Amino acid sequence: MDRSALVARLRGALGEDAVFDGAADLLTYEYDMGFDSHPPDLVVLPRTTAQVQAAVRLAGEAGIPIVPRGAGTGLCGGAVPVRGGLVISLIRMNRILEVDLPNRRALVEPGVINLELSERTLPAGYYYAPDPASQKISSIGGNVATNAGGPHTLAYGSTTNHILGLEVVLPDGSIINTGGAETPGYDLTGLITGSEGTLGIVTRIWVRLLRAPESVRTALAAFPTIDDASNAVSAVIGHGIVPAAMEMIDALFCRAIEAAFHVGLPADAGAVLLTEVEGPEAGLEEQLRTIAAVCREHGATQVRLAASAAERAALWAARKGAAGAMCRLAPNYYLQDGVVPRTRLPAAMRRVEEVSAWSGLQIANVFHAGDGNLHPAILFDRRYPDQIERALKAGDEILKTCIELGGAISGEHGIGFEKKEQMTYAFAPADLAAMAGLRAAFDPRAQFNPDKLLPAAAQCVEIQDIRREAGAPKDWF
Amino acid sequence: MDRSALVARLRGALGEDAVFDGAADLLTYEYDMGFDSHPPDLVVLPRTTAQVQAAVRLAGEAGIPIVPRGAGTGLCGGAVPVRGGLVISLIRMNRILEVDLPNRRALVEPGVINLELSERTLPAGYYYAPDPASQKISSIGGNVATNAGGPHTLAYGSTTNHILGLEVVLPDGSIINTGGAETPGYDLTGLITGSEGTLGIVTRIWVRLLRAPESVRTALAAFPTIDDASNAVSAVIGHGIVPAAMEMIDALFCRAIEAAFHVGLPADAGAVLLTEVEGPEAGLEEQLRTIAAVCREHGATQVRLAASAAERAALWAARKGAAGAMCRLAPNYYLQDGVVPRTRLPAAMRRVEEVSAWSGLQIANVFHAGDGNLHPAILFDRRYPDQIERALKAGDEILKTCIELGGAISGEHGIGFEKKEQMTYAFAPADLAAMAGLRAAFDPRAQFNPDKLLPAAAQCVEIQDIRREAGAPKDWF
Repeated sequence: MDRSALVARLRGALGEDAVFDGAADLLTYEYDMGFDSHPPDLVVLPRTTAQVQAAVRLAGEAGIPIVPRGAGTGLCGGAVPVRGGLVISLIRMNRILEVDLPNRRALVEPGVINLELSERTLPAGYYYAPDPASQKISSIGGNVATNAGGPHTLAYGSTTNHILGLEVVLPDGSIINTGGAETPGYDLTGLITGSEGTLGIVTRIWVRLLRAPESVRTALAAFPTIDDASNAVSAVIGHGIVPAAMEMIDALFCRAIEAAFHVGLPADAGAVLLTEVEGPEAGLEEQLRTIAAVCREHGATQVRLAASAAERAALWAARKGAAGAMCRLAPNYYLQDGVVPRTRLPAAMRRVEEVSAWSGLQIANVFHAGDGNLHPAILFDRRYPDQIERALKAGDEILKTCIELGGAISGEHGIGFEKKEQMTYAFAPADLAAMAGLRAAFDPRAQFNPDKLLPAAAQCVEIQDIRREAGAPKDWF
Repeated sequence: MDRSALVARLRGALGEDAVFDGAADLLTYEYDMGFDSHPPDLVVLPRTTAQVQAAVRLAGEAGIPIVPRGAGTGLCGGAVPVRGGLVISLIRMNRILEVDLPNRRALVEPGVINLELSERTLPAGYYYAPDPASQKISSIGGNVATNAGGPHTLAYGSTTNHILGLEVVLPDGSIINTGGAETPGYDLTGLITGSEGTLGIVTRIWVRLLRAPESVRTALAAFPTIDDASNAVSAVIGHGIVPAAMEMIDALFCRAIEAAFHVGLPADAGAVLLTEVEGPEAGLEEQLRTIAAVCREHGATQVRLAASAAERAALWAARKGAAGAMCRLAPNYYLQDGVVPRTRLPAAMRRVEEVSAWSGLQIANVFHAGDGNLHPAILFDRRYPDQIERALKAGDEILKTCIELGGAISGEHGIGFEKKEQMTYAFAPADLAAMAGLRAAFDPRAQFNPDKLLPAAAQCVEIQDIRREAGAPKDWF
């Protein structure tokens, strides 16, 4: 099937307004928030599961790669069609189909924006817990694909803990419905969550809703050094308190955020720790007293509570808007994502400082300290190729450090295109072979999001098997 | 390889004392707590991962089925070698290898008894949350295989939520290490948890430890009918309280448990609800007041608190020993396991009563009401074949009801051999085909725990492909 025949059949199945093939339209879909960019050959924006199924079948017949896409806020090139093919954007499938409060769940389409679901259910006292910093713009489907985390992962776990079932279009065009982790049979829901569009396209999502806590209190503690703050994190949790969130902001970021948001972050602190507790009002005061005492024992020079809901909201808006504030520090940033055991945070942060020193690039840190989930933002200027190179090398070094310290190469952003070769740091050949075998069971032609998630050497089937050599995307037709 | 050659090679690899082939020894491994029994051809009891690997490779060479086994407390025939082959019992791999309190995790071998882990860590203030009623005798490896639940699943989720990583021997003899749900790549940990020994044999388990709550309080409420008690369950949770556990005991069970344990369950209640709350002491009083008020609004004739830790322990010993008390009611019981949405509990319980009426068999109920996880114990006498038939039919009818009401055919016991054909009630052919494809990716010869988990029609590869027709287990040699 040539390109024009495919376009015609896609238009027939999805409608005229759902298929894009013009160069200007395609440019919109060539990048996400990661490093790389590459335009697709075609883009479709289905409105129904049947349309997704039709697009998958037609692209299957044409033998071209299929790249599912949510809101495009991913940080590792997961939604970039690195060798062209068909992008299937799920963003028009954006309906909240059912809210079932007595059973604390909702059924949504993948294009629903994360925050919109909680906005719908909060008036009734319920919310959807996973809250990536991007939650105002990222889609729940994309959150499922990357198993997105967020500041409140500490208390509630990442997206996978909140997904009760999925409707999925598989590479062969069949549609399956998966139960939750606690239904029998293989946990396909858990398997597909975090699979980054390589096993199927999620078209409906049952999510768990939580009852909004009776009370929420947020404390801000300033420390002379990030080492002190890191030790305080372990000590608080060692006292038997699991805060809802524990976010660390280093000195560099503190100043940038404060300049952008004016929320009263101390200008002279070596690090700031934002700790949130929640639950029945009666229990919170004592927890806050303990947290304050532990922070002071670990050198905190200042501990204060957000005085009002408005101040609390402002603090979180600043934290979640941190990515925006980074433009005050440098023209570009490379936001890395790694995990270390919480007790190894001080060692990890010292290593990040060393990496900053030898790379000659500033590194700003804002991260989920309670989870040991680092987010070093390596600052650079894309106009200087040697800076790009140093930024990539610095990022790679930080991931190696995470593994050395017993951690992982991603906490919540996923692997995508950028980090796939680094999977070999974390997994042995047998581990990767098991994953590749599993992928091949779902997608024997490696047509769904090729070049993502698994290193090239672990792919059972090279994408060339579909039609031809890589590297010339327009050659699909 | 004939039987004696296989025995000799297994003895060479695992030691003389680790291989059993005598008829009397094999009898021990012919059953679990489910319906069916069948002796294996051989049994091995490895002490190390390398020995498991050697046994898997040798059985692979011999082309015989491999059936992994924990403590044998499963309720669905999952550990029964229904067509013979090699049983690999993990019960000698029973060491707690590491307890890492600062990072709240432990590394255990699969044969560690569930309760022993918490007994080890509780003096330091930590515990392992999943608490199946069998926790005094069941192994953590078996809990992983079935994704076991327990009374506290309501607050903490089932086993899968507490497993951070696994070491697994795959059917091809390779050994993989899987990260937790929040490490990148496919969630093999979640996939293998609950896979009932069909994808691999778990040889090491990283589990999450939780900090023991500051306070725990248990309330006992007596209701005139199970309908009233069921409505109270939904109402309590609707008030924004998530108790740590909400257990229902019906009138029949109440009397049997009381006769066995003398813990003061009201003899004349239509149903008793055991509700546990936990957390910081300060928050509990108000929760208990709300729970008591809601129970009274829904007709509770009596609400009382366990006055002491000893009384609380006695109540739980009685609840968890319920299976033992059943021998007071009938010579045999068929313990079913199904799930309905919490709000459908009253409808489900009425249906169970109808099933009891037409089957002519008493059905006693003790279950995890907060999760909507039913456990009707169908009482019968194995000496009368027609009672066996009626019990099976009653169980089947209850599972159909669960599906009709929007639930699942297992909450925590798994599928095993007994319920595999009933998987078709819950899953469409495409869903089962995806599971079968996944199984074949791990185990193309269907050698690991054949005849379990998936209905015969969904198996990609029939076990006959290994060597020959089924039904004559001794024919493997």
